Amino acid sequence: MVEKQLLDARRASHRLLRLTDEETNAILIETADALVAATDDILAANALDLSRMDPANPKYDRLKLTPDRIAGIAADMRNVASLPSPRVEIDRRVRPNGLVIRRVSVPFGVIGVIYEARPNVTADVFSLCFKSGNVSVLKGGHDADDSSRAIVAVIHSVLGRHGIDPAVATLLPATREATDTLLAARGIVDLIIPRGSSSLIDSVREKSRVPVIETGAGVCHCYIDASADTAMARDIINNAKTRRVSVCNALDCAVVHSAVFGSLAAICEPLAASEVIIHADERSYAVLDGHYPSRLLRRAEAEDFGTEFLSYAMAIKTVDSLDEALEHISLYGSGHSESVVAADDTVKERFSTEVDAACVYTNAPTSWTDGAQFGLGAEIGISTQKMHARGPMALEGLMTYKWLIAGNGQIRS
Amino acid sequence: MVEKQLLDARRASHRLLRLTDEETNAILIETADALVAATDDILAANALDLSRMDPANPKYDRLKLTPDRIAGIAADMRNVASLPSPRVEIDRRVRPNGLVIRRVSVPFGVIGVIYEARPNVTADVFSLCFKSGNVSVLKGGHDADDSSRAIVAVIHSVLGRHGIDPAVATLLPATREATDTLLAARGIVDLIIPRGSSSLIDSVREKSRVPVIETGAGVCHCYIDASADTAMARDIINNAKTRRVSVCNALDCAVVHSAVFGSLAAICEPLAASEVIIHADERSYAVLDGHYPSRLLRRAEAEDFGTEFLSYAMAIKTVDSLDEALEHISLYGSGHSESVVAADDTVKERFSTEVDAACVYTNAPTSWTDGAQFGLGAEIGISTQKMHARGPMALEGLMTYKWLIAGNGQIRS
Repeated sequence: MVEKQLLDARRASHRLLRLTDEETNAILIETADALVAATDDILAANALDLSRMDPANPKYDRLKLTPDRIAGIAADMRNVASLPSPRVEIDRRVRPNGLVIRRVSVPFGVIGVIYEARPNVTADVFSLCFKSGNVSVLKGGHDADDSSRAIVAVIHSVLGRHGIDPAVATLLPATREATDTLLAARGIVDLIIPRGSSSLIDSVREKSRVPVIETGAGVCHCYIDASADTAMARDIINNAKTRRVSVCNALDCAVVHSAVFGSLAAICEPLAASEVIIHADERSYAVLDGHYPSRLLRRAEAEDFGTEFLSYAMAIKTVDSLDEALEHISLYGSGHSESVVAADDTVKERFSTEVDAACVYTNAPTSWTDGAQFGLGAEIGISTQKMHARGPMALEGLMTYKWLIAGNGQIRS
Repeated sequence: MVEKQLLDARRASHRLLRLTDEETNAILIETADALVAATDDILAANALDLSRMDPANPKYDRLKLTPDRIAGIAADMRNVASLPSPRVEIDRRVRPNGLVIRRVSVPFGVIGVIYEARPNVTADVFSLCFKSGNVSVLKGGHDADDSSRAIVAVIHSVLGRHGIDPAVATLLPATREATDTLLAARGIVDLIIPRGSSSLIDSVREKSRVPVIETGAGVCHCYIDASADTAMARDIINNAKTRRVSVCNALDCAVVHSAVFGSLAAICEPLAASEVIIHADERSYAVLDGHYPSRLLRRAEAEDFGTEFLSYAMAIKTVDSLDEALEHISLYGSGHSESVVAADDTVKERFSTEVDAACVYTNAPTSWTDGAQFGLGAEIGISTQKMHARGPMALEGLMTYKWLIAGNGQIRS
């Protein structure tokens, strides 16, 4: 059953290549309108999902749809339709023998996305895949299954009106067996992108026989250099930690040069208003003791470094040099987003060059790591790997390329 | 022991980032000179390897070094030094809030290459990795171990003169245990590229916990359309099949439109001079019977389609339409190189668009799939996957990128 869905998706991918960008955009806009028109049906399906979940569950809010949220989903889809096509000629060479060698971007073909109880992801993934000429195979969370089915039904009705195979947006059953079949579908599915908790991502990486782009875990640092503007450091640390604590770009550890100890209490002061618990190492604890609410101040344990808190908590590590800061980040960072606050150009330059992470900030918080904020127009996830796509990825990350070689009978000696 | 070598390699990768392209090139040129100067030592080591191998072994010729071959290895290294640096700014955006967001290409860090008994690969991999700012971890074949050690000794002596950590070119013991340790080194090694037989590549893909770029197997087709210039088809088929039968871009199956049956004997005629065995399907067998040497003509079995022959043998499949040809290639191709001979522009266009392979040729043989022939200046392998790099890959394929975000205290609401 799931095998047949995947084979149908594979077959549909060939015909999808013949759609022009104009046709693709028109269908996306029509789908956006149809989603808004189907608001009542989608909310009714969503109510079924909600009825199965305890409202106290932190996932409840993410699962809940409203007319406004559906309008937002439709607006995002129209936005994707407005983006330039990612199908472009990358380069072209004419060889001395007359062969014309072009590299053109092409969709992967069939992209599987495994996600959790967020019904908006169903529409987002379809838009980005369809825009880029990829078939989407959607494996959503069980908790959101009725909502996902209602959204996909709207997509299918629009595709049907245009004579397009509904398999270009394939929703798998929300079962573990469907996931296992998807992960084994090497040669049928071209790429899998897991979106969600680190346990989901770890399990996909371990089991998948299909190539995977990992998104997810961010253990993010902010290094406050001896040359830092400490008022800027205060605002950056506060923004990076408290803007939204549940997201992967939130701050986990401030790495503080001992030269700024005199300002450390002032730097941390705004954090107390959000009840941020600070796990301070020995030297910074001594500085903060008596200057930060004692109910929020803890002595750091070894495991506080390298932890993605995803809550109102952070660690502080003291260093006496840039080298020591780089060493700490190299050891405990997850390669997601790292930042430095410094006025010294050499420090900014060395930090930018030597930190091995997808996004490296100077004098700005890691909060900015996001496809829309980076000007990509959308985001399918934030890649934490080095192969293919790194950091926020949108349409370009869903493309591979091929070489097209045109000759007139040249043979090779 | 191997674990320590890998940790040393990781550590060396940080310092390698500080070398400029000029310094890198100077060291490569000096190494090329040193390899030529060390010809006697390298040949003596190579003689030890050769003494352990039966001269009748087909690998013997690949293993054997000569003064000319060493000069060739050195020339390739000088050539890599002459290539433009792959460390470039990819794009730059200035956001409305003033954030300057740049994407710059950066080396992966530590790249492991697993290969067989070809001593020249040791030098090639080092050049491309070093030029691109990557540490190379070399796991060569046991048969070539003395030769590899002699080459790496020369590299280390030059690195030593420049105060560069020899771990930037790390040669692992030629043992299976070393391979296993390398494949498990997730987080220490950034990328593994296996080069060699498909069994080597399959085993690396199955076992590796480190990201892999697969190179290798090519089941290559040439479709002769009804609109083909049959004299061109004859030359292309002959070149693709007989230029070098042991390489991945060699032809495995001619897909022949029945409309050209009248010319099929003429198309195949030059193949007989190279004693090419043709495994013909029923319809093409009937056409060739009596017009191709009977000792070289076989009836195709099912397993002849989808086979990479790597020998003087090929299959013929008859079709009655472009669609049938595309279907056959989609089913049996390995995504490496495919070609069409046709005069009809629609056929060329549809073939180029719809064939899902790294390299798609019109009116030229698959023999051209090669980094140097494509104008890349070098080649580390031919990727048969869609992620990251596809087809011939050289310096660009050894790079990832990172986002550098420069602010002056912008916080996100």
